[in-house]
Amino acid sequence: MKPLRHLLTLADVDVEELKTILSLAEEIKADFFKGVRPKRLDGKVLGLIFEKMSLRTRVSFEAGMTHLGGGSMLLEEQHIGLGKRESIPDVSRVLSSMVDCISFRAKKHETVQEFAKYSSVPVINALTDKAHPCQALADMLTIKEEFGSFDDVTITWVGDSNNVAASLIEACAMLGCKIVVSSPKGYQFTSEEIEAFTAQRQPGFELVLIEDPREAVRGSRAIYTDVWVSMGQESEEKERLAVFKPYQVNAELMSLARKDAIFLHCLPARRGLEVTDEVIDSAQSRVVEEAANRMHAQKGLLVWLLED
Amino acid sequence: MKPLRHLLTLADVDVEELKTILSLAEEIKADFFKGVRPKRLDGKVLGLIFEKMSLRTRVSFEAGMTHLGGGSMLLEEQHIGLGKRESIPDVSRVLSSMVDCISFRAKKHETVQEFAKYSSVPVINALTDKAHPCQALADMLTIKEEFGSFDDVTITWVGDSNNVAASLIEACAMLGCKIVVSSPKGYQFTSEEIEAFTAQRQPGFELVLIEDPREAVRGSRAIYTDVWVSMGQESEEKERLAVFKPYQVNAELMSLARKDAIFLHCLPARRGLEVTDEVIDSAQSRVVEEAANRMHAQKGLLVWLLED
Amino acid sequence: MKPLRHLLTLADVDVEELKTILSLAEEIKADFFKGVRPKRLDGKVLGLIFEKMSLRTRVSFEAGMTHLGGGSMLLEEQHIGLGKRESIPDVSRVLSSMVDCISFRAKKHETVQEFAKYSSVPVINALTDKAHPCQALADMLTIKEEFGSFDDVTITWVGDSNNVAASLIEACAMLGCKIVVSSPKGYQFTSEEIEAFTAQRQPGFELVLIEDPREAVRGSRAIYTDVWVSMGQESEEKERLAVFKPYQVNAELMSLARKDAIFLHCLPARRGLEVTDEVIDSAQSRVVEEAANRMHAQKGLLVWLLED
Repeated sequence: MKPLRHLLTLADVDVEELKTILSLAEEIKADFFKGVRPKRLDGKVLGLIFEKMSLRTRVSFEAGMTHLGGGSMLLEEQHIGLGKRESIPDVSRVLSSMVDCISFRAKKHETVQEFAKYSSVPVINALTDKAHPCQALADMLTIKEEFGSFDDVTITWVGDSNNVAASLIEACAMLGCKIVVSSPKGYQFTSEEIEAFTAQRQPGFELVLIEDPREAVRGSRAIYTDVWVSMGQESEEKERLAVFKPYQVNAELMSLARKDAIFLHCLPARRGLEVTDEVIDSAQSRVVEEAANRMHAQKGLLVWLLED
Repeated sequence: MKPLRHLLTLADVDVEELKTILSLAEEIKADFFKGVRPKRLDGKVLGLIFEKMSLRTRVSFEAGMTHLGGGSMLLEEQHIGLGKRESIPDVSRVLSSMVDCISFRAKKHETVQEFAKYSSVPVINALTDKAHPCQALADMLTIKEEFGSFDDVTITWVGDSNNVAASLIEACAMLGCKIVVSSPKGYQFTSEEIEAFTAQRQPGFELVLIEDPREAVRGSRAIYTDVWVSMGQESEEKERLAVFKPYQVNAELMSLARKDAIFLHCLPARRGLEVTDEVIDSAQSRVVEEAANRMHAQKGLLVWLLED
Repeated sequence: MKPLRHLLTLADVDVEELKTILSLAEEIKADFFKGVRPKRLDGKVLGLIFEKMSLRTRVSFEAGMTHLGGGSMLLEEQHIGLGKRESIPDVSRVLSSMVDCISFRAKKHETVQEFAKYSSVPVINALTDKAHPCQALADMLTIKEEFGSFDDVTITWVGDSNNVAASLIEACAMLGCKIVVSSPKGYQFTSEEIEAFTAQRQPGFELVLIEDPREAVRGSRAIYTDVWVSMGQESEEKERLAVFKPYQVNAELMSLARKDAIFLHCLPARRGLEVTDEVIDSAQSRVVEEAANRMHAQKGLLVWLLED
């Protein structure tokens, strides 16, 4: 039996393990484009508990499992009534006695933590309010494919200091990649949060906080943004749109970065707000490759967690 | 790499290709009834985007993919928010980077057309307001199984000149099969439409429009009808029920066709309206075989589009 | 071709067949824990029609099919509109022409009976208001694993004389296991019902009805309860909570059973009502094993029904 491992945040793996997962992802992706789909998870089953709507996350996990010879099952709120019809420990114990792995997309990080406590199979965080480790895996894979290594790369995160940014910082710290974070006042990480995200920092890692986005993108090779209003923050919409306006990634902002800079976005994008069409549809944009890498990266993770 | 092909209407294939798809369907169906299910699409994934409810279409595609060694995934409106949460080009690019084929059931034909424009994998029209090519494949397979060839067959379409009728005419034209269309005034195809449907007409094809259904079925070997009120036309229900009343396929109407005539319907049927129980449950009815042929025909199509 | 068999209640199999299904379940479960998942249902498809919400039933069937090399498909009310959009015979004929087996969870037993009448593939009752044969298979598997045989075992059912109890009595009768049923007045089976459930009774079987739960559990090795208010009985909630209060399975009641007694519950449980935390979370509780056995037992059933 493999030891039981979860991935709720990147803190659940060490640096070597993170590199192993990314190597597996690269290997499986290379196979895939050669037209080879080895059944490395033959007959295995992934359960997906999704409290929030999702396209990329769901399709990447489900397609990935089929490619690897296994299967999957979408469990939506109306199917399980988690915490209402049945307690979280009960659902966790029962579900994990039937499937091989559970991918959980939750409104609150604590729900996934509690669920994992009672699960007898690996639990993967497929997005919570705190972290999005699968997205960070895909992002780092995209950066590595583009630039060959993380040695001479600076990523600039522009916009809200959210769950995606948190996991990205954590990944940069562990892989020794420089990152600049540019968020407006009131939407910045606390120093305690930064300390936690960078606990496993490696040589080469640097984190710089620069409030002015025009300053922040200078010399960067990857400009990354996300929506200004995440699911659950709809009531703050008006205020947020005003605060984040100067953080829009448009052609002018992109022109201040390195000439070979790429544009990243975890999608879905609200075109015309955090990013303009001219940028997201430009030759610099890697958003489709990045989304596709969700699938390839997660296949690496699934094989690492589940392969016999 | 196979060249990228879509099937939005039968105009997307030529006559030889259409015949190849039907031959593949016959071959796979024969295997199936011998208890053999070769994994011709091993590990491949079909995404199903369904804006409208469906039983036959969904089950035929999903079961078919499993029989062929692959998998599938139902993507309903609440899962993707197409055009609302995210633009059609963005969803198309991302989704097609993860799955091998997309089957799309849409309210508007233009949606599927736009989606296909941005997709990097084959897109199949699984029903739109304009066309239903998969149904036509199943219909022609059913006719061929019943009568051996299309040489001495006349099909009579009775009722609304709708999407199903459009694709049926197109299929008859390409396969050289005679067809009579019997629709009331105001519900008939325009001559421009007919011209478009019959662009690839072959020897043996004939199209006759006869408004009187009693006239129209004389000499026919297949009487085909469909619901009078399609999804989205609910507001016209009262008017339509009155107009189409004389077009009901009942035992009396069937008695005017050839003695060996079969009854076809793409289902679901509204029994007592466009068809009576005595007809749909009679020995002449082939509606269950026809529905089953949705699956067999689509397996032919999927293998033609996707097999390495 | 295998002869067509359904499992709507345990009356659909004879004693030897029931034993064969349980043996298959044990064999497949043993393989599973050795890490072996033979593809005994390679490429086969199970359709799941679920009129009521379900976690265990759905996941156990879907995961089971994937383990066995096949696939499955959840068909919810909005997907089929059974009896509304389309008649039950029509849906049954069409669906069974595409999938290899149908598992049906219905509000009314008669719906499944009518559906099975027109199906060309096996139909499994996945819970109706009358019976829950799959649960009974899991229960008897759990008892056998715990005590080695049914020879020296008495099970006490405490609470509502419902569908789960009905199938449990039927299973005990057929396998020669003693059972005590303890239900309040007004919530007891009629003697006609008992007669029907025990038609295939074997040596060793005994059924005793004891209204007082404290009396009923004496000497028992398995105390089994279920919710007091089943789905569809919400309007009777207040009255039922009062009537069933003395039937709560708590530590005191468990202390009156044999020292080696186990606790069973088909889940989901309403903790604090029919069972207390101290019992369901105790070392005597087998509710998670029992739930997992849903999957193992049903795999036995599926292989028995479908394997070539």
